[in-house]
Amino acid sequence: MTIEFRPQIKDLQAYKPGKPMENVKREYGLDRVIKLASNENPLGCSEKSKQAIQDALSHLNIYPDGNTTDLKETIAEKFNIKTTQILPSSGSDEMVDQISKTFIQEGDEVIMADITFPRYISTCKMMGGVPVVVPLKNHAYDLEGMKEKITDKTRLIWLCNPNNPTGTMFTKDVLDDFLQSVPQDIVVVYDEAYREYVTREDYPKNALEYLPKYPNLIIMRTFSKAYGLAALRVGYTLASEEIIDHINRIRGPFNVNTLAQVGAIAALKDDEFLQRSYDVNEEGKRYLYKIFQELNLEFAPSETNHIFVDVKKDAQEIFVELQKRGVIIRPIYGNFIRVSIGTMEENVTFVEKLREVL
Amino acid sequence: MTIEFRPQIKDLQAYKPGKPMENVKREYGLDRVIKLASNENPLGCSEKSKQAIQDALSHLNIYPDGNTTDLKETIAEKFNIKTTQILPSSGSDEMVDQISKTFIQEGDEVIMADITFPRYISTCKMMGGVPVVVPLKNHAYDLEGMKEKITDKTRLIWLCNPNNPTGTMFTKDVLDDFLQSVPQDIVVVYDEAYREYVTREDYPKNALEYLPKYPNLIIMRTFSKAYGLAALRVGYTLASEEIIDHINRIRGPFNVNTLAQVGAIAALKDDEFLQRSYDVNEEGKRYLYKIFQELNLEFAPSETNHIFVDVKKDAQEIFVELQKRGVIIRPIYGNFIRVSIGTMEENVTFVEKLREVL
Repeated sequence: MTIEFRPQIKDLQAYKPGKPMENVKREYGLDRVIKLASNENPLGCSEKSKQAIQDALSHLNIYPDGNTTDLKETIAEKFNIKTTQILPSSGSDEMVDQISKTFIQEGDEVIMADITFPRYISTCKMMGGVPVVVPLKNHAYDLEGMKEKITDKTRLIWLCNPNNPTGTMFTKDVLDDFLQSVPQDIVVVYDEAYREYVTREDYPKNALEYLPKYPNLIIMRTFSKAYGLAALRVGYTLASEEIIDHINRIRGPFNVNTLAQVGAIAALKDDEFLQRSYDVNEEGKRYLYKIFQELNLEFAPSETNHIFVDVKKDAQEIFVELQKRGVIIRPIYGNFIRVSIGTMEENVTFVEKLREVL
Repeated sequence: MTIEFRPQIKDLQAYKPGKPMENVKREYGLDRVIKLASNENPLGCSEKSKQAIQDALSHLNIYPDGNTTDLKETIAEKFNIKTTQILPSSGSDEMVDQISKTFIQEGDEVIMADITFPRYISTCKMMGGVPVVVPLKNHAYDLEGMKEKITDKTRLIWLCNPNNPTGTMFTKDVLDDFLQSVPQDIVVVYDEAYREYVTREDYPKNALEYLPKYPNLIIMRTFSKAYGLAALRVGYTLASEEIIDHINRIRGPFNVNTLAQVGAIAALKDDEFLQRSYDVNEEGKRYLYKIFQELNLEFAPSETNHIFVDVKKDAQEIFVELQKRGVIIRPIYGNFIRVSIGTMEENVTFVEKLREVL
């Protein structure tokens, strides 16, 4: 007699973490390692967030506010939405898990792109759903292709705009059309994790305006990217009160830790930091574009803090060679790598090492 | 056309948080409020944890170590177990959710006590399992009664020892017998969240020694109680490599935030703080026992940091009256309240207010 696991999880892969930076240093005898692998904010985070965390260290023994009262009020005020339409979570990872648990039943079809944020497919399988995968077109979401895949078994559609790992976006017009076409019994999740980095004017700047019209829409945001709080784990979902109420039923009572709550509240009050993060990202992007053009490397136009580049050599090999030289990037597949945009100093070092290994 | 939620979650209740302490102060015009409602460590946490968090504030922009490498190594060394048998989580709440997602299929029977930790039943229902609830006997787990409920549909059994909210425990002999009787295709989860507070010699002091013999056993521990780190959300599961590997497949890649990781590692290295927490708890427990006896109030003997007391009046009413006077406790049901053991100063204030309201 041995224990039996749910069959739905048998084919799932455990997350394979990269080497900690300290290990990379030790292994290759490096003094310094630059990590451009996880789309983290190279400026760190707002000093206000650090101060708020300092102030909260006196009561680590007390459970977090399970209602995330102050965080929801700060979000509500900043973005002009009701607190009952907001649900903070322990990063986007937990949010995707919560949404999947709220909606996906055995055999439900779930439409998603490939390649995109990997939690969409793993939580779909975890719940016994059937992933319906629509390849990207020119490294961008193919919303027409996704529409064509809708059947009467479709339960949910994942959209990531701009997309990770390709950095590409689709326009407001395309989103308008898509939301109008999708039957309203299908949940559309719109993940805008990288929204703060977008430069193009035709991007859906305020996705919240869709909520009154589309009760089947869920919007996801995070503090892990432009706000620079990836270590804390905090993001939030925006949707109808009915959807929020249902996700709330499966939520753990204290899912957002105290320091994440206070850190996020402070971050929302520091627009100057956000502007500086945007500016540094733009400067780095223009620099890297120029270099990639010089090197004759094709890349997808990025509306995020990372660039998807065809390095014309095996990505895994480039990854290993760059790592030996103290620069960590993310090999995606084939000849494609994803490099996060760092500070100018980090970008220059990356370029120097990239030239060596190409 | 409206969206459909999973039917399994419809009857679940969203967590109803208590009033934040600040609101209680404002509402009743109080200068000070004492919270003895959530079994938090009244001493706070180790200074070493605070220092470790301070030191980590420089890299909040970097994702947590998704492998919790250092935390697992610290646990492995302290408790003499392999790192591959350890899985840290975002508190016990997430752990219970993960275990339910790993094992519980539609229609599976899941045996649990009533009353006990409420996440066992909510995550069971969330996964479509059938809760088989065995009432406590004299406020303690009835393991004989639980055994009798085993059928060929039983998938999992939740044990909480000592139990929350009654504070009672069962002995090593009882656990030995139970584990021997349960067919090994049934998962037994042994939650020892309050283990550090136990005083009795016949408690299973080292549950880890059961792991080699019982591949169906999962042990849960937390840093939220005696370690005083409830705000950070961190606990860990111990089980066979096979079980850990499967839970790992559904785990979010960065489920334990960075500050929780460094705080927990430091906490494991401060035995002095743990000893002091135990001593203060013992002193408070003896004091409260004496008072309850004086007041002729019956209580369950506690092996935890809280006491389950029959206040001979409606618990909800006592809760409200105490709250007006600046003391928050937890009404459980009928005439039973649960009061967390505080510092001696807090205990004395609680007693003073309790005398007023009785």
